[in-house]
Amino acid sequence: MNYFAILFTFSLLSIITFSHALVEDFCVADYTLPNGPAGYSCKDPAKVTFDDFIFKGLSAVGNTSNIYKSCVTPAFSSEFAAFNGLGLAMARLDFDIDGVVALHSHRTSEVLILTQGEIIAGFISTNNTAYYKRLKVGEIMVFPQSLLHFQLNVGKTPAVAIVTLNSAKPGLQFTDNSLFAGNLPVELVEKTMLLGAKQVKRLKKAFGGSMN
Amino acid sequence: MNYFAILFTFSLLSIITFSHALVEDFCVADYTLPNGPAGYSCKDPAKVTFDDFIFKGLSAVGNTSNIYKSCVTPAFSSEFAAFNGLGLAMARLDFDIDGVVALHSHRTSEVLILTQGEIIAGFISTNNTAYYKRLKVGEIMVFPQSLLHFQLNVGKTPAVAIVTLNSAKPGLQFTDNSLFAGNLPVELVEKTMLLGAKQVKRLKKAFGGSMN
Amino acid sequence: MNYFAILFTFSLLSIITFSHALVEDFCVADYTLPNGPAGYSCKDPAKVTFDDFIFKGLSAVGNTSNIYKSCVTPAFSSEFAAFNGLGLAMARLDFDIDGVVALHSHRTSEVLILTQGEIIAGFISTNNTAYYKRLKVGEIMVFPQSLLHFQLNVGKTPAVAIVTLNSAKPGLQFTDNSLFAGNLPVELVEKTMLLGAKQVKRLKKAFGGSMN
Amino acid sequence: MNYFAILFTFSLLSIITFSHALVEDFCVADYTLPNGPAGYSCKDPAKVTFDDFIFKGLSAVGNTSNIYKSCVTPAFSSEFAAFNGLGLAMARLDFDIDGVVALHSHRTSEVLILTQGEIIAGFISTNNTAYYKRLKVGEIMVFPQSLLHFQLNVGKTPAVAIVTLNSAKPGLQFTDNSLFAGNLPVELVEKTMLLGAKQVKRLKKAFGGSMN
Amino acid sequence: MNYFAILFTFSLLSIITFSHALVEDFCVADYTLPNGPAGYSCKDPAKVTFDDFIFKGLSAVGNTSNIYKSCVTPAFSSEFAAFNGLGLAMARLDFDIDGVVALHSHRTSEVLILTQGEIIAGFISTNNTAYYKRLKVGEIMVFPQSLLHFQLNVGKTPAVAIVTLNSAKPGLQFTDNSLFAGNLPVELVEKTMLLGAKQVKRLKKAFGGSMN
Amino acid sequence: MNYFAILFTFSLLSIITFSHALVEDFCVADYTLPNGPAGYSCKDPAKVTFDDFIFKGLSAVGNTSNIYKSCVTPAFSSEFAAFNGLGLAMARLDFDIDGVVALHSHRTSEVLILTQGEIIAGFISTNNTAYYKRLKVGEIMVFPQSLLHFQLNVGKTPAVAIVTLNSAKPGLQFTDNSLFAGNLPVELVEKTMLLGAKQVKRLKKAFGGSMN
Repeated sequence: MNYFAILFTFSLLSIITFSHALVEDFCVADYTLPNGPAGYSCKDPAKVTFDDFIFKGLSAVGNTSNIYKSCVTPAFSSEFAAFNGLGLAMARLDFDIDGVVALHSHRTSEVLILTQGEIIAGFISTNNTAYYKRLKVGEIMVFPQSLLHFQLNVGKTPAVAIVTLNSAKPGLQFTDNSLFAGNLPVELVEKTMLLGAKQVKRLKKAFGGSMN
Repeated sequence: MNYFAILFTFSLLSIITFSHALVEDFCVADYTLPNGPAGYSCKDPAKVTFDDFIFKGLSAVGNTSNIYKSCVTPAFSSEFAAFNGLGLAMARLDFDIDGVVALHSHRTSEVLILTQGEIIAGFISTNNTAYYKRLKVGEIMVFPQSLLHFQLNVGKTPAVAIVTLNSAKPGLQFTDNSLFAGNLPVELVEKTMLLGAKQVKRLKKAFGGSMN
Repeated sequence: MNYFAILFTFSLLSIITFSHALVEDFCVADYTLPNGPAGYSCKDPAKVTFDDFIFKGLSAVGNTSNIYKSCVTPAFSSEFAAFNGLGLAMARLDFDIDGVVALHSHRTSEVLILTQGEIIAGFISTNNTAYYKRLKVGEIMVFPQSLLHFQLNVGKTPAVAIVTLNSAKPGLQFTDNSLFAGNLPVELVEKTMLLGAKQVKRLKKAFGGSMN
Repeated sequence: MNYFAILFTFSLLSIITFSHALVEDFCVADYTLPNGPAGYSCKDPAKVTFDDFIFKGLSAVGNTSNIYKSCVTPAFSSEFAAFNGLGLAMARLDFDIDGVVALHSHRTSEVLILTQGEIIAGFISTNNTAYYKRLKVGEIMVFPQSLLHFQLNVGKTPAVAIVTLNSAKPGLQFTDNSLFAGNLPVELVEKTMLLGAKQVKRLKKAFGGSMN
Repeated sequence: MNYFAILFTFSLLSIITFSHALVEDFCVADYTLPNGPAGYSCKDPAKVTFDDFIFKGLSAVGNTSNIYKSCVTPAFSSEFAAFNGLGLAMARLDFDIDGVVALHSHRTSEVLILTQGEIIAGFISTNNTAYYKRLKVGEIMVFPQSLLHFQLNVGKTPAVAIVTLNSAKPGLQFTDNSLFAGNLPVELVEKTMLLGAKQVKRLKKAFGGSMN
Repeated sequence: MNYFAILFTFSLLSIITFSHALVEDFCVADYTLPNGPAGYSCKDPAKVTFDDFIFKGLSAVGNTSNIYKSCVTPAFSSEFAAFNGLGLAMARLDFDIDGVVALHSHRTSEVLILTQGEIIAGFISTNNTAYYKRLKVGEIMVFPQSLLHFQLNVGKTPAVAIVTLNSAKPGLQFTDNSLFAGNLPVELVEKTMLLGAKQVKRLKKAFGGSMN
């Protein structure tokens, strides 16, 4: 058997596959380069290491000392560069007792697995039917693309859930924050939601949104 | 020149292209067959006529005698069978004076062209920034995928706009209807939106939703 | 209720969502950066304003003083930067009396709404069946992806139509221009279309194409 | 080592993977069931055999005794059921001496490899630039999605090329056939192509299209 | 305020949205109808209940008494009908001490979160570089589309991980099972893997594959 | 007829289409600019020539003097820049007598056409069924997305096949090379493949992989 031929061949094959595989196998985000509709530019593959494919940010309990007694810790391509271009994102949901992940939606579908406690999770379809259910540890629930949904801790202990979404950046939008935390004028909130002025101002104040 | 050969050839070509083109050129929905994730099954192409590609349902003014003084008339694949599989849908927005198309979202991006009157249209990004603007006839505005958005008539006359969406079924979801018109319990609305009970009950009543 | 906690939380949430939402919510084209298969690079979100989402270029009547007595005014991502990455484009069709939008095709499906006058619109399927129909104001017609199609003004007044396509750059290709306005040699036009030399030269001259 | 455990396990694993893998691994078309926007329904996997993945229809020389002295033999999902759902199609191009594959387009991009003879192949971009070139055996050329293109035998022998397209049904549309072989009225051909009536009638006659 | 008008309007809106939302919001698989390239046909929405969106099959520990001391419990669209059409699937990995999820690949990318124990997880890129790493509870790792990958329990206790994949049916393929558990002849395994005959026969026997 | 108007119009049309068509019609790779998840950045269209769309690299016989007596010559977007963004790639397979293209997989589906000799080609489904068959010249076979597959020359002469894949970079992964040519430790190969240490070391040595 001609070992020279073998080694020559495989180094050749390696060069060939090397030259084209790097971009496509993965595209770890380089936040310093321009981004486009498909995501961030790719980090130089020669600089990609084992550690680029691991994310530790979901190991710690999130800070739930807030109005909702909950915390959403994202692992999107903006936090975990290896997700760039792969169509996956994750988040950790921490619920204190009575904690709520408020009504929200995003561009993608989502699957949730409950890893601690007991919650009610649900979504609302476009014909205004709410599908909600009490979940136990290890049970999973799916939330179809872009539909409004929510989760509440209904157990006697803190709860934890892990959600995965099929986009590197799902575009998480909380209804309350959209209406009350930003620059949407009070009058537009009233008219587009038919809410009373007092109610709107109370929530604008609570959420730190513009009061004009 | 051998005309027999010619005719033979083109009838042959016709058979070939005929046999494979029918499904792919278009897939006019047959509502009587099973549907799947990609849409409805296709109507027998032999039964497809010119008229299948035309939809007249957007010519008439919509009925705006309702709480919002507005009407959304859809031309989705459920109303216009030819849209099935083509990734396009349309709707007509009619606004009476002071009419509002309330806060809503859908699975797809949308482009709006104002054909009559003067409106304010806007959307809210996921970092809670509202992008809104006064539009004049002939101006167009884009609403990115799945973000909450709205339109209000701010002119002295009725207004009309045409919107197009890049899915045969965009999945139109009105925030108010989701919360107040369906079966979502009052308590879940309060907790997931931080709204007061009185407010929620008032709107549940107005929207005909379940009061439990 | 602990307002400090609330404000802290929401500013925190804002930072989180801010940091990841900017690219994905929209990607307004920055024409000065490199582009790729998915479109243009994204403009720095910090510099995006309300005005970026509005396009006024379709408000004006197009110049129809040409051989076809018609004008196609595009609003593609090359003209309307906000379309970049959103999979939508628009165009305005103006027809003088007897005006024609000549035979053409593009990469995407199209929906047309007639806003003024009366036209005949049609497309040809791959088994050589022409589907064409007289349209009245407010009626819509769909043109399936990449099939040859056309529109003619058959009314007694100028006509106007608005078309929407499900790609930020549909790649509009006019058959006559492809054959007669560019550098395709006369001999290749004759052979690939079976047209007579005189006919080809007449049209090459009219369209300003190369005569070699 | 516990062989019973092993056999039990793998039969178990086999059942699990079997139960879900059959649809997804492949979806050989069953032409007797309804089809949809994504293609044909899948043949019962239990009835799929080795032979379903092989197609012999491109081995034989096509019949070139026609006006173009060429033949396009398709292997689309309508001829080769295994292509259904896999996003690939093929065709064989046979050219007699002076044979031409006339101007045409389709929904997808195409790559051509010349396996015999010598041809000129080209496409026209949407800014009316023709990119054409003389090809030798073994050379490949790419034709971008939906752009008009053509191939001519310029050698002294018959030529053969194999093309592959990235859709199970590319939707092959020949410009001449669309205009002259079907039911498009003479007047509409004249107006949408600016061709003279005599020319149109000559070709309508040659292509066997309707003369009205 | 005219309540009749309100109720009329919203029931109207409900009918409209109802009529088109059913397919698109979700497409719970009906295993009794034909399936196609995009997945299963949709269950009649009128028969869809809360329970359709919950899956309990991942709560229980998998049976690891097998050659690998591990178990993969799938929640694909074939087990969890609500995943159909949503582009998501999940699986639970159970590892006994020294357990291994053997080398495998699938059509989609995957993200893994370790919920118990300590494992080494890794994948191999197409230039033959192995990216592997020791993971602790709560850490996540991504496995890019279709690349070979594996997981091993390296802790002193059983381990559990949850994986999510961005297809309703990822098409899990174990390299050993492909070579040794099925009908691939011994000679083809030897030649396509350069493995010795004795080795192949030993594994064929262990995996219960055909010995011819 | 007003020729000035004509020329004015068409130069106008040319400018319009020119300004937007360049990116979209094609995106010839510029390897010097950043790349992203969708591929390489686009070469300046003004510098694109006819030659950019032709690739000659598959005309020559590949070097088969290696352990497999075969050669895979790729024409991916890394070798043929015009494939960038078009979703197509090609490769030439050369087999010496008894030559084998070893077990491998990739992100995309593949179609193979045999142009010389006689081979056995096959793939393995995820339920461990091998579908393999003897092919003659001109016959085609399809290999579904990401499934393990192989080809062997079983004729008395060298063989040649052309394969096309529906991605610009299919990500070719050879199982043997993944296990034995790179840095995957011997112990991990043994445990994840259940291969004996001697076997693994023999192949590691033959493939030039790390021996640790």
